Amino acid sequence: MNIGFIGLGAMGRGMAQQLLEAGHDVTVWNRSPEAAKTLAEQGAKIAKTPSDAARNEVLVSMLADDQAAHQVLVESKAIEAMKKGSIHVNMATVSVAFARGMAALHERLGVGYVAAPVLGRPDVAAAGKLNIIAAGAPAQVERIRPVLDAMGQAVWPLGESPERANVAKIAANFMLASAIESMAEASTLTRAYGIEASDFLDIVTNTLFASPAYQGYGKMIAEARFEPAGFTMRLGHKDVGLALSAGDEKSVALPLGSAVRDRLLDALANGDGEKDWSGLAEVAARQAHLDKR
Amino acid sequence: MNIGFIGLGAMGRGMAQQLLEAGHDVTVWNRSPEAAKTLAEQGAKIAKTPSDAARNEVLVSMLADDQAAHQVLVESKAIEAMKKGSIHVNMATVSVAFARGMAALHERLGVGYVAAPVLGRPDVAAAGKLNIIAAGAPAQVERIRPVLDAMGQAVWPLGESPERANVAKIAANFMLASAIESMAEASTLTRAYGIEASDFLDIVTNTLFASPAYQGYGKMIAEARFEPAGFTMRLGHKDVGLALSAGDEKSVALPLGSAVRDRLLDALANGDGEKDWSGLAEVAARQAHLDKR
Amino acid sequence: MNIGFIGLGAMGRGMAQQLLEAGHDVTVWNRSPEAAKTLAEQGAKIAKTPSDAARNEVLVSMLADDQAAHQVLVESKAIEAMKKGSIHVNMATVSVAFARGMAALHERLGVGYVAAPVLGRPDVAAAGKLNIIAAGAPAQVERIRPVLDAMGQAVWPLGESPERANVAKIAANFMLASAIESMAEASTLTRAYGIEASDFLDIVTNTLFASPAYQGYGKMIAEARFEPAGFTMRLGHKDVGLALSAGDEKSVALPLGSAVRDRLLDALANGDGEKDWSGLAEVAARQAHLDKR
Amino acid sequence: MNIGFIGLGAMGRGMAQQLLEAGHDVTVWNRSPEAAKTLAEQGAKIAKTPSDAARNEVLVSMLADDQAAHQVLVESKAIEAMKKGSIHVNMATVSVAFARGMAALHERLGVGYVAAPVLGRPDVAAAGKLNIIAAGAPAQVERIRPVLDAMGQAVWPLGESPERANVAKIAANFMLASAIESMAEASTLTRAYGIEASDFLDIVTNTLFASPAYQGYGKMIAEARFEPAGFTMRLGHKDVGLALSAGDEKSVALPLGSAVRDRLLDALANGDGEKDWSGLAEVAARQAHLDKR
Repeated sequence: MNIGFIGLGAMGRGMAQQLLEAGHDVTVWNRSPEAAKTLAEQGAKIAKTPSDAARNEVLVSMLADDQAAHQVLVESKAIEAMKKGSIHVNMATVSVAFARGMAALHERLGVGYVAAPVLGRPDVAAAGKLNIIAAGAPAQVERIRPVLDAMGQAVWPLGESPERANVAKIAANFMLASAIESMAEASTLTRAYGIEASDFLDIVTNTLFASPAYQGYGKMIAEARFEPAGFTMRLGHKDVGLALSAGDEKSVALPLGSAVRDRLLDALANGDGEKDWSGLAEVAARQAHLDKR
Repeated sequence: MNIGFIGLGAMGRGMAQQLLEAGHDVTVWNRSPEAAKTLAEQGAKIAKTPSDAARNEVLVSMLADDQAAHQVLVESKAIEAMKKGSIHVNMATVSVAFARGMAALHERLGVGYVAAPVLGRPDVAAAGKLNIIAAGAPAQVERIRPVLDAMGQAVWPLGESPERANVAKIAANFMLASAIESMAEASTLTRAYGIEASDFLDIVTNTLFASPAYQGYGKMIAEARFEPAGFTMRLGHKDVGLALSAGDEKSVALPLGSAVRDRLLDALANGDGEKDWSGLAEVAARQAHLDKR
Repeated sequence: MNIGFIGLGAMGRGMAQQLLEAGHDVTVWNRSPEAAKTLAEQGAKIAKTPSDAARNEVLVSMLADDQAAHQVLVESKAIEAMKKGSIHVNMATVSVAFARGMAALHERLGVGYVAAPVLGRPDVAAAGKLNIIAAGAPAQVERIRPVLDAMGQAVWPLGESPERANVAKIAANFMLASAIESMAEASTLTRAYGIEASDFLDIVTNTLFASPAYQGYGKMIAEARFEPAGFTMRLGHKDVGLALSAGDEKSVALPLGSAVRDRLLDALANGDGEKDWSGLAEVAARQAHLDKR
Repeated sequence: MNIGFIGLGAMGRGMAQQLLEAGHDVTVWNRSPEAAKTLAEQGAKIAKTPSDAARNEVLVSMLADDQAAHQVLVESKAIEAMKKGSIHVNMATVSVAFARGMAALHERLGVGYVAAPVLGRPDVAAAGKLNIIAAGAPAQVERIRPVLDAMGQAVWPLGESPERANVAKIAANFMLASAIESMAEASTLTRAYGIEASDFLDIVTNTLFASPAYQGYGKMIAEARFEPAGFTMRLGHKDVGLALSAGDEKSVALPLGSAVRDRLLDALANGDGEKDWSGLAEVAARQAHLDKR
C-alpha cells in the first residue's frame, strides 16, 4: 500500500522500517530530517511537508504527545490534505480528550481514523513484534490490517470508538507504573531488614511475577542502574497524568495512580526527570532514608 | 528423617503428604483431628499433643497466623518439648515481630529455628511445587534441606536471620495485593469507557503481564467470579497489615499498601470478607458507581 | 472612581453593591441581564458589552472559572478595549496557568493587572467583609486600594507577581477541602463506635477547631444537611484539581489533595455534584457501609 | 475527696496541682519520684506503690501509653487493690482495644471505671482549663464530676461505654494531624511559587482557620521552629497509628490518616522523632526538594 509515515522517533523509526521490509511504498516525514535520510537509504521517499505525507492511501503517525500531534497534524493542515477514502492510523499515546477531538475532526473532514497505540519499547518496534491495540470503524480497521500486521505480532481490537484504544493503552501504562512502584516499595521494605534488592527481586520475578515487565524493570532496580532510560520519569509522569485525567473525566478514582504520581513528582523535583522510571526505587529509598541506616 | 508436622490446613495437608511420599517418617498433629486421619491412611503417625509432634528430629509447622502459632506452639509448651539438636521449620506467614520473638525463644531453649514461608497456593503445595524462602543458621538450613526439597520446586535462601524470610514473604504478598488492585483500577477505568473487563485484561495479561499471578487473578476479575475464594479478602487484609506493620517498625512508608488496605476495608465493611481478594475489582467498580451508568 | 464590573453571580452581586454604596461610579455587565437590572436600580449603569465595561479607570471581574474568564474577557476583546493606564482587578479563582497567561496578556497590551481573589462566601461578600488576597505591581495595588477596601474587611498583599495571589487562594481552598474531609473521616470513625456525629463534632468545633470554617461545615455534617449547597462538590472538585495542577507544575505532591479528590469523585459518580462539599461525610459513611451496622 | 493520682508527667503534674488547689486530698505516685516531691511541697501525700495510690475513693491515672498503663496499673496489681465502690478515672490517650480491656477488667473486679481523656497541652492542664471527654456509667461520671471540674473548663459526656471517650480523643488527634499536614502541604505549594510560609499562613490562620490549633502550629511552621517540641513526631505517629487501628477494627478507612502516617515515617526515618509534629512542614519541603530551587 501507499503509506505516509509521520514521526520517526525511537519508536517510529523501527515501525517505518518494518513497513518497508513488508514491501509497502512508504513516504516519511520527520521534524528533524536526519531520521528520514536513514530510511530513505532503505527505500523510503521523503515528504517535504506533513501534508505531502498525508496524501497517501494510509497515513501512519507516531508523535510524542498531544502537543506534537496537534502541531504536526492539525496546525500544519496535514489532516485536511488527506484524500477522501484514505485512513489515518494514529499510533501515539495521546490523551482521551485529544483522541476524541481527533476522531471528530476526521469525521468532519470525511476521512478515516483508526487509533492504534502500541505496547512495546523501541527494540520490540524494530523487530516488528509490537502488540497493537486498535479501535475504529471495523471496515477501516480491516483495510489497514496489513499495515498493522507488518509492525506487530498481534492486533487487539477494541471496537468502533477510537478513544477506547487510547484509554486501554493509558490503563496499561498505569499498570506498569504501579508494578514498578510496588517493586520499589517492596524492595525498600526488605532492604530495611537487611536483604539485598537483587536477592528479593530475584525471588519474586522468577516466581509470582515471571513476566517481561517485572523482569526488565526488576533488573534495573536490582542493579540500581537507571541510566540510560528506557522510559523516562518525565514520560511516566505524563502517562500517569493521562490516566488520572481519563479517570477524572468519568469520575473514576485511581488511588494507586495518585500514589505513584506523588513519587514521580519527588523524582522530578530532585532533577531526575531523564532517569528511567524504575528509579522510583531511589525515591522510595530516599523517603525511607535508607542511607542513614 | 523423623519429622513432626503441625497444622494440616489447606496448605499443610499437601505439604505433609509430599514429605510422606519422599519417604520421611512423619508424625502429624492438627487441632481438628479429621485432617490427621486422612494422612494416617497414607502412612503418617498421629501425635496426641503438639509436644508429641515436637519430639522429632525436625518439627515443621504451618499455622494460620501469629495467634494460632502462639497458642499451638508456645502456650502448649511444644517448643519446650523439642530435643536438643532438633530444628523447628516454621513455614507459616507470620508477622516480623512474632518471627523475631520465635527466633529468640528457640535460641534461649537451645533448639534450632528456620523460617521457611512459601509462595504458592494449595494446589501447588499438593504438587510439591512450592517456592520456599528460607532463612536461618546455614548449618541448620543445610540439615533440613531434604525436608524443603520434598515440598518445593525451589529454595530461596535469605541468610541467617529468620525474620528476613518472613519479611520477604510479606513483601511478596504486598506485591500481589498491589497487582490485583492495579487490575481492579485499570479495568474499572476502561469499563467506564465502555470496554469489557475481559477484553482489557486479555490484552495486558497476555502481553506485559503474562505471569501466573496476573493471569489467575485477571481471569477471576474478567469473569467477576470471586467465590469460592482462593485467598480471602480477610487474609489479604491481614497480610497487607503485616506489610504496613513491618514498614512501620523500620519507618518505611508503603503508599500502595495503604491504598490497597483502604479498599480491602470497604470490602470487609460490605460483608465480603470471605470473597476472593480479586474482588477488589468490585470495590473499585462500586466506588466509581459503574452500575449507575 | 469609575469602575467597570463584569460577573454578577452570587459573589459579584454583593461586591458590586458594596462599590456602589461606597460611592463609586459603577458600570456593570453580566451574561444574563437580570442581575444587572437589580444593580441598576441601586444606581449602576449597564454596559452593553464587556468591552463597554472595560473602558473605565478600573475594571473588576468576578467570573466562574478559566473558561468563563477566557470567553468574556479575552475572546470578547474586552481587555483590548481597556484604556492605557487603567487597571484590571481579577477577583475570580482561576488556575495558576491561566493567571500567568492573563498577566502576560495585560503586560503586552500595556494595561494594569492585579489578581485579587477572595476568601468568603456570598453572605460575606454582600456585607463587604471579604478577605482579599492581592498581588500585582505595588503602585497599581495602591491605586485600586479604595476599590478593594470597599469590598473587603482586610487586604492581604502577596507581592508583585499576580499568580501568587491565585496560588494562595487555591491553597486556602485546598486546606478547606482537607478540613472537611478530616471531619468526614473522624465523624465516620466515631459513628462506627456508636457516637452521634453531632456529639463528636460539637466537641472538636468548640475546642481545638473553634473557627468559622469548621463550625459552618461541621454543622452541616452534624445535621446531615447537604442541600442547598453553599459550595458544591463540583466546585470543590474543580478547586482541588487546581491545587493538584499547581503542585504538578512545580513538582510539589499534595497527598491530602489526592485523597480528597478521590472522595469527591465518588460523590460525582454518585450524582451528588450539586450537593454541598461537606457531603464528603456521606462518601466516608458510604465507603464504610455504616448503614449495614 | 480522697484521690489517688498516678502519672506525674508534663500533663499529670498540672492536673494533680489543680486537684490540690480545689481542696482535694491527693496521694500521688510517679515512676521517678522527683515529680512527686514537688507536689508534696504543695500538700500532696506520696504513695509508696501504685497500689497505695489506688486505695482511695477515686483513682486518677495519666500515663503515657498502653504499655505504661498496663505495667503501672495492671501488672502492679494496683487495680486489684482498689476498694469496692471506688472509681478509676483513666485520663490517658490509650488505644480502643486497651480501653475495652480495661473496662472489662474493672467490671470483673467490681470497681468503677470512667474514661476521661483530655484536649489541651501542658500549659492548659496547669491552668485547669482542659476540655475533658468523659464516658462511663452515668452515676459514676456524676460522682467524680467535682474531680473533673477541678481540672477542666468543660466536660463533654459521651455515654456509658468508656471506649467511646477514647475513640473520640483519638479522632480529635487525627484531626489535628490532618490540619498540620494540610498547612505543611499548602505552605510548601505556595513556597514553590515564591510566597514566604509566614505570609501565607498569616492569611489563613487569621481568616478561615482562626482557631488555637491552626494558629499555634501555624506559627511554628511560619518560623520553622520545631524544637523544643510541644508534641513530638513520635507521639504523633503513635496517635495516628491509634486512629488507623481503631478504623481497622471497624473497617473504616482513613485516607488522610494514611497520608499523614507516611509523612511522619519520613520524619522518623530522618531522625526527627523528637521534633514537634508541626515539622511535617519540613518533610513536605524535603520531598518537594525546595532547597534545590
